[in-house]
Amino acid sequence: MVDTVRRHTPLVQCLTNTVVQEITANVLLAAGAAPVMTADPEESRLCAATASALLVNLGTITTEQVTVIETAVTSAVRSGTPWVLDPVAVGSLPLRTSVAHALHTRGPSAIRCNPSEAAALSGRGGGGRGVDSVDEVEDALPAATDLSARTCAVVAVSGARDLVVTGGRVTWIESGDPLMQKVIGSGCALGALTAAYLGIGTRSPGGPHAAVVAAHAHAGAAGLVAAHSATGPGSFAVAWLDALHRIDGSTVAELVSLS
Amino acid sequence: MVDTVRRHTPLVQCLTNTVVQEITANVLLAAGAAPVMTADPEESRLCAATASALLVNLGTITTEQVTVIETAVTSAVRSGTPWVLDPVAVGSLPLRTSVAHALHTRGPSAIRCNPSEAAALSGRGGGGRGVDSVDEVEDALPAATDLSARTCAVVAVSGARDLVVTGGRVTWIESGDPLMQKVIGSGCALGALTAAYLGIGTRSPGGPHAAVVAAHAHAGAAGLVAAHSATGPGSFAVAWLDALHRIDGSTVAELVSLS
Amino acid sequence: MVDTVRRHTPLVQCLTNTVVQEITANVLLAAGAAPVMTADPEESRLCAATASALLVNLGTITTEQVTVIETAVTSAVRSGTPWVLDPVAVGSLPLRTSVAHALHTRGPSAIRCNPSEAAALSGRGGGGRGVDSVDEVEDALPAATDLSARTCAVVAVSGARDLVVTGGRVTWIESGDPLMQKVIGSGCALGALTAAYLGIGTRSPGGPHAAVVAAHAHAGAAGLVAAHSATGPGSFAVAWLDALHRIDGSTVAELVSLS
Repeated sequence: MVDTVRRHTPLVQCLTNTVVQEITANVLLAAGAAPVMTADPEESRLCAATASALLVNLGTITTEQVTVIETAVTSAVRSGTPWVLDPVAVGSLPLRTSVAHALHTRGPSAIRCNPSEAAALSGRGGGGRGVDSVDEVEDALPAATDLSARTCAVVAVSGARDLVVTGGRVTWIESGDPLMQKVIGSGCALGALTAAYLGIGTRSPGGPHAAVVAAHAHAGAAGLVAAHSATGPGSFAVAWLDALHRIDGSTVAELVSLS
Repeated sequence: MVDTVRRHTPLVQCLTNTVVQEITANVLLAAGAAPVMTADPEESRLCAATASALLVNLGTITTEQVTVIETAVTSAVRSGTPWVLDPVAVGSLPLRTSVAHALHTRGPSAIRCNPSEAAALSGRGGGGRGVDSVDEVEDALPAATDLSARTCAVVAVSGARDLVVTGGRVTWIESGDPLMQKVIGSGCALGALTAAYLGIGTRSPGGPHAAVVAAHAHAGAAGLVAAHSATGPGSFAVAWLDALHRIDGSTVAELVSLS
Repeated sequence: MVDTVRRHTPLVQCLTNTVVQEITANVLLAAGAAPVMTADPEESRLCAATASALLVNLGTITTEQVTVIETAVTSAVRSGTPWVLDPVAVGSLPLRTSVAHALHTRGPSAIRCNPSEAAALSGRGGGGRGVDSVDEVEDALPAATDLSARTCAVVAVSGARDLVVTGGRVTWIESGDPLMQKVIGSGCALGALTAAYLGIGTRSPGGPHAAVVAAHAHAGAAGLVAAHSATGPGSFAVAWLDALHRIDGSTVAELVSLS
């Protein structure tokens, strides 16, 4: 599937926070997808109707952006554009908490989050500390299963290991490197990469679950490669982009173990 | 001229999209120019009157930014500040299309774009796919010639080769590297670099056309140098900034072929 | 203190300009702190009450952000959250000048600025050129002393050397590298790092003055290390993040000379 993304260059509309826009776009380009970012409601509506996929990330949400996001999500749903919700810091701060709760029932194809966000969104916990998780991925399985059952979305929870849940189907992904947590936007960009993989649609033989797993495996395998040469978070981020660009599907399959 | 920019440190005001602000500022610093970015209308008006040059890039345009941009352009025109229009994705999305059409007749010194944007702005095509071009630079000559004739601006079209047109004068620039397309903002930052070169004004012996060609040659030569050491888009972006900072005018002249 | 920050991971809320948000967050992560950025007034108010420290940077200020900033500062002051003011380009542009003058009397723990900003804020000069200083750090001592006396804040002035003044106490810091000036946001991120060091509070044995000195020493020592391997501003920025992450307190003490 890594190679299918490269061949089809899905166009991924990103309504994401202002901190991570550059690395998000660079991750999409490195993986062979094409980013587009808009801020005007009408432009966002049109884009969501024609893009291959849409990412909604609540990291620096404002009331103006709520309008943009709602317009785009309505358009995506009407047009059948798959969309990913990244409910950054849901449960910690009020505006994003109410927006995330409203959005997660509107048919996202996937929800990408950390363990504290999964807990908060499923009603099982109160959120993290700022944008960081205070919980472990291992404890997030019940919350992720609930969320997936209620929303019909693929739920992906990132941490030391990654967890992907769709209904009763559960996949654990072992890959990545602890330095990834020291690069701002590595998680947010993974949300965009998830959208890119969902954007190849029926070209994904295993359906949405397999697409979300493949996105996480691609990012995680690139993290493993990057860790070989990195001497800190700066060089890790550079090597991660290089590896995302360079590795093919068979390398990813070799490096990542699924269970 | 590469050396003249370094000696005179033109102050370039950038009203640009939120995705590429950091790399845009870093490219200007690496080339020896000084960036300044503002978001308030009155601050933007004052800045445009005193800066060496102004860049207007429509990448994440909102109605609020239209006011800021119009105020700054009016101020630049009144003060004789050269300004560059980068009509990102004109023809694809409605707000930027109307803004680009309104702005391009207000006397920009240069218009920097991709082939699809040149076609859309000249009325010869319908725009690209998201922010990407669906056309080749080779086919953009008639559109660029039209645009230049109608606006009296230098029109620069970027792609595998770069094309610079002023009235009947045509320059093709061979340089750069395909990895440049995998680095978000390399094109947008080239718009800012173009503004920096226009900002040295009458210190450019060949006038605006030569200044725009020199900006593209500097960026392209740095791309050639960067490609030697890069192993992917991450390391390419780093090496590109290093090379922009390091190479002098004679190296640029050696590496780039003009026709 | 370098090690104390890493052990306690202070949560630093950054209300900062859109150009430097990514590098600011990466610098905090590299130093072992945790960034959080918000844009909604109510979210910002809550965050300021619970974060370890708050940074206010006026780089791309708008009237909407003035509301967000005032709300957050009021909340920080009420909750005893230390906060840092970075009055970018005060004296050059009107909105930020009036906001900086209003804010600097509201009890910031520290003010981080360049020599021209120190002069403008203390009423001794008219501001710089765009966001750049036109004055030398050596000349900023009277302005910094005035500012500190009037505001009771630690005043840090950055340049070829760094100056930290608290009342009559004066520390000069020799470290860093000229390439630092070619990396956008290195100064703004230093404001965030200053907030992180103030965020460890009473765990700083030398009080706020020592905390601000330590933040500058950490950044400067990492700059010295980065300069060894850098071949330009691109590789310098990468190596700087690596070094910020890697060096410990004793290395910082070895590399930096204070007077």
